Amino acid sequence: MSQKKFVYAFAEGDGKNKKLLGGKGANLCEMTQIGLNVPPGFTITTEACLEYLDAGHKLPAGVMGEVRTHMAQLEKATGKGFGNADNPLLVSVRSGSAMSMPGMMDTILNLGLNSATLQGLIRQTGDERFAYDAYRRFVQLFGKVALGMPDALFDEPFETIKQREGAKEDIALSAANLREVTELFLAAVQKHTGKPFPQDPFEQLEIAIQAVFNSWMGKRAVDYRREFKITPEMANGTAVNVCTMVFGNRGFDSATGVGFTRNPATGENQMFGEYLVNAQGEDVVAGIRTPKPIARMAEEMPDLYRQLIELRDKLEAHYHEVQDFEFTIERGTLYCLQTRNGKMNAPAMVRTSVEMMQSGLINKEQALLRIAPESLQQMLFPRLDPQHQATALAKGLPASPGAACGHAIFDADRAEQQGRSGLTVILVREETKPEDIHGFFASQGILTSRGGKTSHAAVVARGMGKPCVAGAEGIHVDTQARKATIGDTVIKEGDLITIDGTTGNIYLGAVPTVEAEFTEDLRTLLSWADEAAKLKVMANADSAHDAQRALNYGATGIGLCRTERMFNAVERLPIVLEMIVSDSAEQRQEALDKLLPIQRGDFEALFEVMSPRPVTIRLLDPPIHEFLPSESQLVADLEYLRRMRDTARGVEVLSDTLRLLAPNEAAAQQVRALADSNLVEAAIAKKEAILRKVRVLHEVNPMLGHRGVRLGITFPEIYAMQIRAILEAAAACNKRGIANHPEIMVPQVCTPEELKAVRRIVDDIREEVEAASGQKLSFKFGSMIEVVRACVRADKIAEEAEFFSFGTNDLTQATFSFSREDAENKFLPLYTGMRILADNPFEVLDVNGVGKLMEIAVSGGRQTRPDLKIGICGEHGGHPASIAFCHRIGLSYVSCSAPRVPIARLAAAHAALKH
Amino acid sequence: MSQKKFVYAFAEGDGKNKKLLGGKGANLCEMTQIGLNVPPGFTITTEACLEYLDAGHKLPAGVMGEVRTHMAQLEKATGKGFGNADNPLLVSVRSGSAMSMPGMMDTILNLGLNSATLQGLIRQTGDERFAYDAYRRFVQLFGKVALGMPDALFDEPFETIKQREGAKEDIALSAANLREVTELFLAAVQKHTGKPFPQDPFEQLEIAIQAVFNSWMGKRAVDYRREFKITPEMANGTAVNVCTMVFGNRGFDSATGVGFTRNPATGENQMFGEYLVNAQGEDVVAGIRTPKPIARMAEEMPDLYRQLIELRDKLEAHYHEVQDFEFTIERGTLYCLQTRNGKMNAPAMVRTSVEMMQSGLINKEQALLRIAPESLQQMLFPRLDPQHQATALAKGLPASPGAACGHAIFDADRAEQQGRSGLTVILVREETKPEDIHGFFASQGILTSRGGKTSHAAVVARGMGKPCVAGAEGIHVDTQARKATIGDTVIKEGDLITIDGTTGNIYLGAVPTVEAEFTEDLRTLLSWADEAAKLKVMANADSAHDAQRALNYGATGIGLCRTERMFNAVERLPIVLEMIVSDSAEQRQEALDKLLPIQRGDFEALFEVMSPRPVTIRLLDPPIHEFLPSESQLVADLEYLRRMRDTARGVEVLSDTLRLLAPNEAAAQQVRALADSNLVEAAIAKKEAILRKVRVLHEVNPMLGHRGVRLGITFPEIYAMQIRAILEAAAACNKRGIANHPEIMVPQVCTPEELKAVRRIVDDIREEVEAASGQKLSFKFGSMIEVVRACVRADKIAEEAEFFSFGTNDLTQATFSFSREDAENKFLPLYTGMRILADNPFEVLDVNGVGKLMEIAVSGGRQTRPDLKIGICGEHGGHPASIAFCHRIGLSYVSCSAPRVPIARLAAAHAALKH
Repeated sequence: MSQKKFVYAFAEGDGKNKKLLGGKGANLCEMTQIGLNVPPGFTITTEACLEYLDAGHKLPAGVMGEVRTHMAQLEKATGKGFGNADNPLLVSVRSGSAMSMPGMMDTILNLGLNSATLQGLIRQTGDERFAYDAYRRFVQLFGKVALGMPDALFDEPFETIKQREGAKEDIALSAANLREVTELFLAAVQKHTGKPFPQDPFEQLEIAIQAVFNSWMGKRAVDYRREFKITPEMANGTAVNVCTMVFGNRGFDSATGVGFTRNPATGENQMFGEYLVNAQGEDVVAGIRTPKPIARMAEEMPDLYRQLIELRDKLEAHYHEVQDFEFTIERGTLYCLQTRNGKMNAPAMVRTSVEMMQSGLINKEQALLRIAPESLQQMLFPRLDPQHQATALAKGLPASPGAACGHAIFDADRAEQQGRSGLTVILVREETKPEDIHGFFASQGILTSRGGKTSHAAVVARGMGKPCVAGAEGIHVDTQARKATIGDTVIKEGDLITIDGTTGNIYLGAVPTVEAEFTEDLRTLLSWADEAAKLKVMANADSAHDAQRALNYGATGIGLCRTERMFNAVERLPIVLEMIVSDSAEQRQEALDKLLPIQRGDFEALFEVMSPRPVTIRLLDPPIHEFLPSESQLVADLEYLRRMRDTARGVEVLSDTLRLLAPNEAAAQQVRALADSNLVEAAIAKKEAILRKVRVLHEVNPMLGHRGVRLGITFPEIYAMQIRAILEAAAACNKRGIANHPEIMVPQVCTPEELKAVRRIVDDIREEVEAASGQKLSFKFGSMIEVVRACVRADKIAEEAEFFSFGTNDLTQATFSFSREDAENKFLPLYTGMRILADNPFEVLDVNGVGKLMEIAVSGGRQTRPDLKIGICGEHGGHPASIAFCHRIGLSYVSCSAPRVPIARLAAAHAALKH
Repeated sequence: MSQKKFVYAFAEGDGKNKKLLGGKGANLCEMTQIGLNVPPGFTITTEACLEYLDAGHKLPAGVMGEVRTHMAQLEKATGKGFGNADNPLLVSVRSGSAMSMPGMMDTILNLGLNSATLQGLIRQTGDERFAYDAYRRFVQLFGKVALGMPDALFDEPFETIKQREGAKEDIALSAANLREVTELFLAAVQKHTGKPFPQDPFEQLEIAIQAVFNSWMGKRAVDYRREFKITPEMANGTAVNVCTMVFGNRGFDSATGVGFTRNPATGENQMFGEYLVNAQGEDVVAGIRTPKPIARMAEEMPDLYRQLIELRDKLEAHYHEVQDFEFTIERGTLYCLQTRNGKMNAPAMVRTSVEMMQSGLINKEQALLRIAPESLQQMLFPRLDPQHQATALAKGLPASPGAACGHAIFDADRAEQQGRSGLTVILVREETKPEDIHGFFASQGILTSRGGKTSHAAVVARGMGKPCVAGAEGIHVDTQARKATIGDTVIKEGDLITIDGTTGNIYLGAVPTVEAEFTEDLRTLLSWADEAAKLKVMANADSAHDAQRALNYGATGIGLCRTERMFNAVERLPIVLEMIVSDSAEQRQEALDKLLPIQRGDFEALFEVMSPRPVTIRLLDPPIHEFLPSESQLVADLEYLRRMRDTARGVEVLSDTLRLLAPNEAAAQQVRALADSNLVEAAIAKKEAILRKVRVLHEVNPMLGHRGVRLGITFPEIYAMQIRAILEAAAACNKRGIANHPEIMVPQVCTPEELKAVRRIVDDIREEVEAASGQKLSFKFGSMIEVVRACVRADKIAEEAEFFSFGTNDLTQATFSFSREDAENKFLPLYTGMRILADNPFEVLDVNGVGKLMEIAVSGGRQTRPDLKIGICGEHGGHPASIAFCHRIGLSYVSCSAPRVPIARLAAAHAALKH
């Protein structure tokens, strides 16, 4: 075997070669070589580690020789001697592989101490207590990590002395006590190993090096690598870093501290940090003394402060990034021990990006790429004050992000009433239904005990940008008793609660929150993102109000307007019900005629807000039975009504009925009136009619049922009404000089023939509206691509469709044959837990399966129509990894809920810059 | 424009060029040229038609010239003269395009008659009545079809004369009457057209030719072409056929008849047909005289009979096919007027195929290809006697083919009891459930008023090969009253009814049926099919009994054994229920331990029957809640039980309960016992426990829910039990010297990780069983491909799977996002009706969508494993068109229900021969 070089001084190692030197070693080399004052040291390579392990735990020939050479260099550089009793050189020994990995050997400090050098240390420092403390720490760390002794062998004698001395803290022990501790430790080592504690510093060093190497194959390290799929290509073997010890507790010209090159909480361009004079790093951590803000150093140690400022400038100039660094001052000399990129919250990241770019420290690309798109969420929703100390009472699904605090109210009517009177409200329900919608408007947030991330509550709340915690199964909601119980805790109506829709946590009482901060800096950053991005970002919005919010967030259009949401409004639902239960086409048309002007008004308002941007309107999608009450509810209602009719105990049952059917006063009066006037029969007949319809419309698998374009073809009058509303609204806008670009989108398409059938309706109505208005209308006609068959027939679909929009929620369901509602409750958690699936495919787009179908669709569609506009409007459209995929396969735009638009804009820029 | 040839004599036209000469013209040319005595004539080409239409309804120059030339040839050939009053030549004029097409001009007969030639005809025939009848027919046909006169203008005067004469039939009119009729017709023409009836035969002919050409663009013809998508490439323009008239009514040396070269009812090689002496073809149709069987001709007209036999031989020798021909004998000369392939029933087709092949008339390929695979169904199931006259009372879905007659019985218990006592039974239910299974065994057929072709009743009946009519919505089944009503008709329990599962028809009383005929000839034919086929044909079978049946039909193995069917047996369901409602893993294991020996026994029996062929066993697939009663049933049961408990009116309600819950005596006694002994509480508790479980297991979209391998991963003990049963059964067979080849198949796979997880269970159990039995087991491990994602990830799936089996039922549902149960009730009929889809994709494999995914899967799978065995076990596996597709994409086998195996074998041969 050729003679390899196994050891590199910090001054010579390649700061980029983490594979050879480990992350820590490379970092120390880099810092040294850019002129920072790093205590001198060297790194033993990962190759040495691998050869050591291969050879059956035997150090490769030459390693210790190289180590001795480098130790000699350290002695020369420090003027100290390794094992020299007068001026001892002490070192730290640390592991460090290419990837940070818990489970490998931790630090050994003060290596080089023995009974002789200890005396030298006492003489040098004049501090016997410090020296014995250093020695007993060394013996303890060495014993545990290098000799593999159990903790208890050190902890027990130490505790015994402390108890004897009545010392609560280590600090209360005297030099003599620590000397006694040291001796007990040395005896424990002798007893455990059968040999005295090694006194030869090089023997100490060799044992420590081998211990580091051994730890690479330790159980915890091996498990960790398996668990996180760290392959040998990513990290193979650990390096060993040997570094001269420096002490910040060598007098009042010594100190230790940590610094940020900028304020990590605000991003302000001002050094930030803390320091302690005559102290070790541990003292800061132990909290025994209060460190001082770094600004104080300017007065207290002006020269050192100047050096620190220089250090900061060097760090940022070299790393082009805010740094979080550790330093120690030993007798007036500043050492930099470590530096890494500073962790900051999103507002600070955004501000530093903008300021560093404007000062020329980084370019726009760097300014964009250093910020994780998802982190912007912090700036877009109110969140719990990061400093809060409250303990969560229960946890549900994080269904719509943001935090909110308010008074728990158990039904929508009362929520509306209380909300109007100025109370902050959290609407608490077992689950919500379309008829609760007015309660959403009046509330700060929504909490449900049933339903998943696609439940009505979750979807509506996300659309409104209100926090929602859904499916908190630990909570029992008792609407009639107007309370909720969580274990022993009872939440009565009106009690203050706080929900965190970002985490799913629920708190009793008011937890302080921090408002959203859509800053000028963020606006600047996102304008750079738009320059870089190829993908346009549109928003999902169902009303002029939502659209306005989307515009504020920078949406370039509406990518999805779900017309059925417009049906859900409380005053419209009865008309929709009328449409559904109608027995004849005439009756149905009558109801549709009532809906037409309402929808037309909605669209006109939407076009006006978004003018002149495109507004993509999806025709009715969900099965119509979704607008009806549930069968079990109707059966229960009927049971009570029939009992009321059938039994002589009418009065008694009536009171039950009242309680169950009529939680609010208005309805209660109605029921009383019914009973009083003997109109029970009529009520029964009406309920029975609805029940019959519910049963007729019942579907075994509604996801795959009579919905979308299938409805449009079987009940063409519904689509005709919607299309007319769109085109008449466009004509009305034109007349008022408001530029508009409607795009009519057909859901659930599986064959071009469906589009042809709808197109015929569009053409007929267009002709009528153009004739009536004397205008030529301009709009697009396109297709959702959310059925698998549409993907494989995309070439044919594109003959009819002028644009595509991927509905990846439905497409994912069909591709996996997973019903989202069922899967997320029943087996998906286990699937991701067992790593059968890497991620929940409803959250992270499944690139290998669903993505493949999308690629087929894109290539098929563009084959027919090379300039085909293709977007995505499923939930994935707002998630960075999925956005990157959409960019790669050449989509034209993504559409997501308004509050995710900024995240998507940044993610789109990332995708373009990285691809 | 170059001078084209527009007219071809029958003796010169190309008998293969249907495009130019039309089907009828080409046929007449071919017959003439192979030496049959066809009355001479000629054909005017479709090109002439197209030029006529292009030129604004003007005959191309030269056409009439050519016609005159050919007419002169006809005169020469016949010795008659066109327009010659002494010996008139009469012709027929018929349209004929490349494809048979209703809506074009029909035949004009006797063209060439006028007042002069009429007299000649009278003189020639000596039959004034015949001559006038011929004339009035000509005038009438010419008036209607060539001059476009309304029917009424002829029908009214004719009726007037008949009434005046008191004639019920035309035959009752005298020569004088017919002469009067003719004069009235001629007057009508004059009045309608303003001109006398054309007397010049060439003028008649030119008008007739133009009328034929015009009819190509007639509304009915154009509509027909649009409806059936007949493109110009398939048929463009119509030809005109002009043919010498011959008469079979010119004396006792004249006759007319029809013949089959072989017996179309049995296939026997004996000429078959009927004839009438001195008669016209119309006389046979009118049924006025009874025709004689053709064998009589041997005595009556031996010379002509010999000519007929010669004709038959020539026809079969030329066409290599049984022919259905028409002939006329005019004054001792036999003319062949038409011939076409004989339409025969399946037994006749099979017999003639085998005999014609054996006599060297056709080869094996022709023997196979002339039989439509689907038609074999006639020989595999009992069917209604084709001669039956019964009128269907109602119609349901044809859910399982075959006809059956029996006594209507309204519940499974009584069906079993009556069946055992020897009664033939038709089980009549609103819908069936797993607990009805014993009723199926005891019945001849099943009739339900609810559910589609995939309902429990349909699927189970198909599996058993019993006739089933499902979802007959016109029938109201009242189980309690033990009757069914169809409109005003009441079927009481015990009444005889007949169902036809091939058509869906339901009859009151016993309609005669014909037994299935799996003949020796069919066996021979299918052995030829197996030689030709590339695809193997396996069967779906869930029991040794079914497997035996499949073997008899020629299955080469079991392609799908649905283990859940084994759970459905009446004595097993309670154990399955126990497994499902168990609250702890121990309880569940206890139930599984009871199921293990039962399943092991099932498999052992199956392996034994099929030895040494492969048996593919699918692990549990459906969601486990399918084994539970429905929520609404439980709620209803509980409601009654609670009423029984709650009210003082216990006795009264009890009688209701008894009637509703206990249609049979045993159950009634049980309920009484419960009530009597105050055990109602216990019953309530039990029902409530099941109801809770039903609610926990409830799924929004069960098709896409917690099923298949998802169950296998969340409840590994269920799959472990099944795998153990398979492997232990294999070991037991080995021990007995019974060769076996189990193939373990995992359903609903969407990712290779799922297969890996199941494979680990298999490996563990294999090790155990091999150790315990001291044997090395040989089996395969494979995957259903029924989830879309499995298709696009087939390369990876094939790393784990040793075989693939397409489940095209589920794959079709996922590809279209159609739930079959919902789609077939709600919108599919409209979709196929509107031609949005050409076919119901659950019946005919959707080659463009589902097929595309299958191709992706085949190519992915074979990329990883070039010899990968790939089959299909969805319902499509038994349908000829789908089998052809499976052949084209290179599958290894198809698997279908046992009674479809012969159909599949023939279809597989067709696929190989045609591809």
